[in-house]
Amino acid sequence: MQTNNVAQVNVLTLETMNQNVRQVEYAVRGPMVLRAVQIEEELKKGVKKPFTEVIKANVGDAHAMGQKPITFIRQVLALCAYPALLEDDKFPEDAKLRARRILDGCGGQSIGAYSASQGIECIRKDVASYIEKRDGGIPSNHENIYLSTGASDAIVTMLKLLICGEGRTRTGVMISIPQYPLYSAALTELQGVQINYYLDEDKCWGLDVGELRRSLTAAREHCNPRALCIINPGNPTGQVQSRQCIEDVIRFAKEEGLLLMADEVYQDNVYAEGCVFHSFKKVLFEMGPEFSSVVELVSFHSTSKCYMGECGFRGGYMEVVNLDPEVKAQLTKLVSVRLCSPVSGQALMDVVVNPPQPGEPSYATFTKERAAVLADLAEKAKLTEESFNNVPGFHCNPVQGAMYTFPRITIPQKAIDQAAGQAPDQMYCMKLLETTGICLVPGSGFGQREGTFHFRMTILPPKEKLKYVLEKIAEFNAQFLQDYS
Amino acid sequence: MQTNNVAQVNVLTLETMNQNVRQVEYAVRGPMVLRAVQIEEELKKGVKKPFTEVIKANVGDAHAMGQKPITFIRQVLALCAYPALLEDDKFPEDAKLRARRILDGCGGQSIGAYSASQGIECIRKDVASYIEKRDGGIPSNHENIYLSTGASDAIVTMLKLLICGEGRTRTGVMISIPQYPLYSAALTELQGVQINYYLDEDKCWGLDVGELRRSLTAAREHCNPRALCIINPGNPTGQVQSRQCIEDVIRFAKEEGLLLMADEVYQDNVYAEGCVFHSFKKVLFEMGPEFSSVVELVSFHSTSKCYMGECGFRGGYMEVVNLDPEVKAQLTKLVSVRLCSPVSGQALMDVVVNPPQPGEPSYATFTKERAAVLADLAEKAKLTEESFNNVPGFHCNPVQGAMYTFPRITIPQKAIDQAAGQAPDQMYCMKLLETTGICLVPGSGFGQREGTFHFRMTILPPKEKLKYVLEKIAEFNAQFLQDYS
Repeated sequence: MQTNNVAQVNVLTLETMNQNVRQVEYAVRGPMVLRAVQIEEELKKGVKKPFTEVIKANVGDAHAMGQKPITFIRQVLALCAYPALLEDDKFPEDAKLRARRILDGCGGQSIGAYSASQGIECIRKDVASYIEKRDGGIPSNHENIYLSTGASDAIVTMLKLLICGEGRTRTGVMISIPQYPLYSAALTELQGVQINYYLDEDKCWGLDVGELRRSLTAAREHCNPRALCIINPGNPTGQVQSRQCIEDVIRFAKEEGLLLMADEVYQDNVYAEGCVFHSFKKVLFEMGPEFSSVVELVSFHSTSKCYMGECGFRGGYMEVVNLDPEVKAQLTKLVSVRLCSPVSGQALMDVVVNPPQPGEPSYATFTKERAAVLADLAEKAKLTEESFNNVPGFHCNPVQGAMYTFPRITIPQKAIDQAAGQAPDQMYCMKLLETTGICLVPGSGFGQREGTFHFRMTILPPKEKLKYVLEKIAEFNAQFLQDYS
Repeated sequence: MQTNNVAQVNVLTLETMNQNVRQVEYAVRGPMVLRAVQIEEELKKGVKKPFTEVIKANVGDAHAMGQKPITFIRQVLALCAYPALLEDDKFPEDAKLRARRILDGCGGQSIGAYSASQGIECIRKDVASYIEKRDGGIPSNHENIYLSTGASDAIVTMLKLLICGEGRTRTGVMISIPQYPLYSAALTELQGVQINYYLDEDKCWGLDVGELRRSLTAAREHCNPRALCIINPGNPTGQVQSRQCIEDVIRFAKEEGLLLMADEVYQDNVYAEGCVFHSFKKVLFEMGPEFSSVVELVSFHSTSKCYMGECGFRGGYMEVVNLDPEVKAQLTKLVSVRLCSPVSGQALMDVVVNPPQPGEPSYATFTKERAAVLADLAEKAKLTEESFNNVPGFHCNPVQGAMYTFPRITIPQKAIDQAAGQAPDQMYCMKLLETTGICLVPGSGFGQREGTFHFRMTILPPKEKLKYVLEKIAEFNAQFLQDYS
């Protein structure tokens, strides 16, 4: 179509774009998922495959896997969206009460108005009350709560504030390996230095302070470590940290002058007997003022996980503790550039932190629905662990919490040799996808000790489908081991 | 509370934080607004003031100013949030049809599922159809549509892809002065070089290619200019660009090898007789393949403005034209790290691009509501211009479009001398706020020719309140001129 004879070159090409962005990787939605979507298209067009549907077990997307929304949550959201329904007898009074309270907090009583950049004040107050109750009365101030566009947004915002310096003074951020790849992606984009500390697979993905120290000492040779990120319950690893472990981490952070970032989005997802969720905030304050008055802690929560699984609404919050007031002002300024997080997501967060109480009309239904989701997940966590530990070559730690299993798999040397540039576990997962329609994420997308291989699979599929998935993976694995023996 | 004797210093302080973030300024929610919120608190506590309420005319927040949501939009959103309502006879069939179509596009038929990172496919197809219709049949491909968290998110994402290099090769981005400060804030954060081109206040804030060329030539001395941003209709300036002007800009971009970023979020907000909105996409394609096959164009739209004013939902989209396919893949990857934009905002965007059609049950009401909002805005645009041009010392261009007026004001030398470090127009606006409760944004927050002073005021307040605001500003201005004469 070129009509003049000057060769026109694109302004923006792979070579001339921001190379930091080019280097970003995000395996959860990476090449596996692109191929999964292609296969779905092929199936629609009638292409013959050894399976009839693609099962996306790559992502913690509860509703996509058939989990039903919690009735009360959606009633409040519908009331907020269309307040004419406040006159409708079919909606329970407690849902109306919450909707009215949220609308009173909105400009012009509409969730279509921008909120304050930090989030609607009455919702931040509800979040603070929720945290206080969760943490056995330890105070929480709504001035320290920032509502966000999912937890991802808040995590990236904190990293933006932190990362600076050049060369050896460049900010380093400690993240677990395996990690959730939002962290590595954000660090790549912001050019922070990723400092890996390894979770101990042989101790149920436990976190050991000796390993933190090793990792920190090595990192100090080449960068300026300033923050330590913890995911508890773990993603992709599913471990739930003990109170003792959290204490050790806090003591370490204080000694070493590190800001703590606690990703606690799976706080309601604890299944294993004897495991309890302990918030970093609670443990920090129980350790006394020597710690609670100095250690900088930011903790993150989301509407996307737990029993509600409302990923699409992009709701979340962070609580900042001991943040320098001047830095807090800078944080508020920074979030104001994007005006505010989605108000419908804020409203959803409000229902999560302020659910129906005993005596209210929706209490019984709400409690039943919530318990059913969590019981189902607990059962599937157990089922998955047991099933995978019966697969030759697999080793699977208990899924104590969160929504994923991260089994270690055996890849024969012959397969490794033939992987041809691909990570061997990526080759494994790609073959699984082509053979069975099951989409997983290779362990290499999360990081793993060299020479070991894993995949992440969500436990969210409905039980019958999950059983099918577990069987198919076992079958595929047997064939794979045979093909490459 | 410190119990040990080691002086504990915060990890994150003003000095040790990311200094690029520290330098970010965003006047629309800056010090004026912080003070406005304080004053509101003081009023609540019973502090006596010469006024009874704070009027936030600083931001284009339609619902906060009392504009009612469009019924049809909210019906569809309520149906999507709580699909049990699909059985309710009180909801019209066309709203149900749209809700069902959106839900069919969602994983598990729930807007609580993550969408594809680029946005729900059927919504992107509706956006593409809308663009085709708007542009008289010029084709639009849904593969080039990215749904976003408001337009701000998409604009920042594009800037992230673009900005790289060091020193004289650092990416420069041309923005109008006055500008919407999202641009300057994002450029500061991303360390892109801001290249100012001035709109001509004496020609109704017109854009002149000679000025573009002057600005570009000067910038090439110290950076690598790669993109040109245009806001049409203008924010804060309210001008609507002529077709000829857009053609000239496109020709300039092609000659100079610049990627075009067209911020067209006010595309339905055109009031002045003889003014018509021309999209950059349409003009580009009407200029023939010599242009339409080579010039890289990204255009942005939002659910926050126009007749719907649904800011809180954070819906938006961008269309990319002639973007290198490899860069498009990188763009898709980058947005996938944040998983997806809010699905309720995507749903809202769907209703905007696919409103009720003649023959459908909601057509009459929808059309009436939309027309009423736009007619009301047109009337207020005229009222504001006329009123301000009667204020001694003010000069106010016609508000041809968008939602703001940006009058030039006179600040006596004595006031300038006493501003003491503050920008003189900031001092003016602060005094206005303290005296009248009216919150505006000083022109210095948007940029203006040296020695001139302005403020931005939205025309959104209800007519009676707007009249009150206009009167109060005139009174205040008279007193101000007298005080500093």
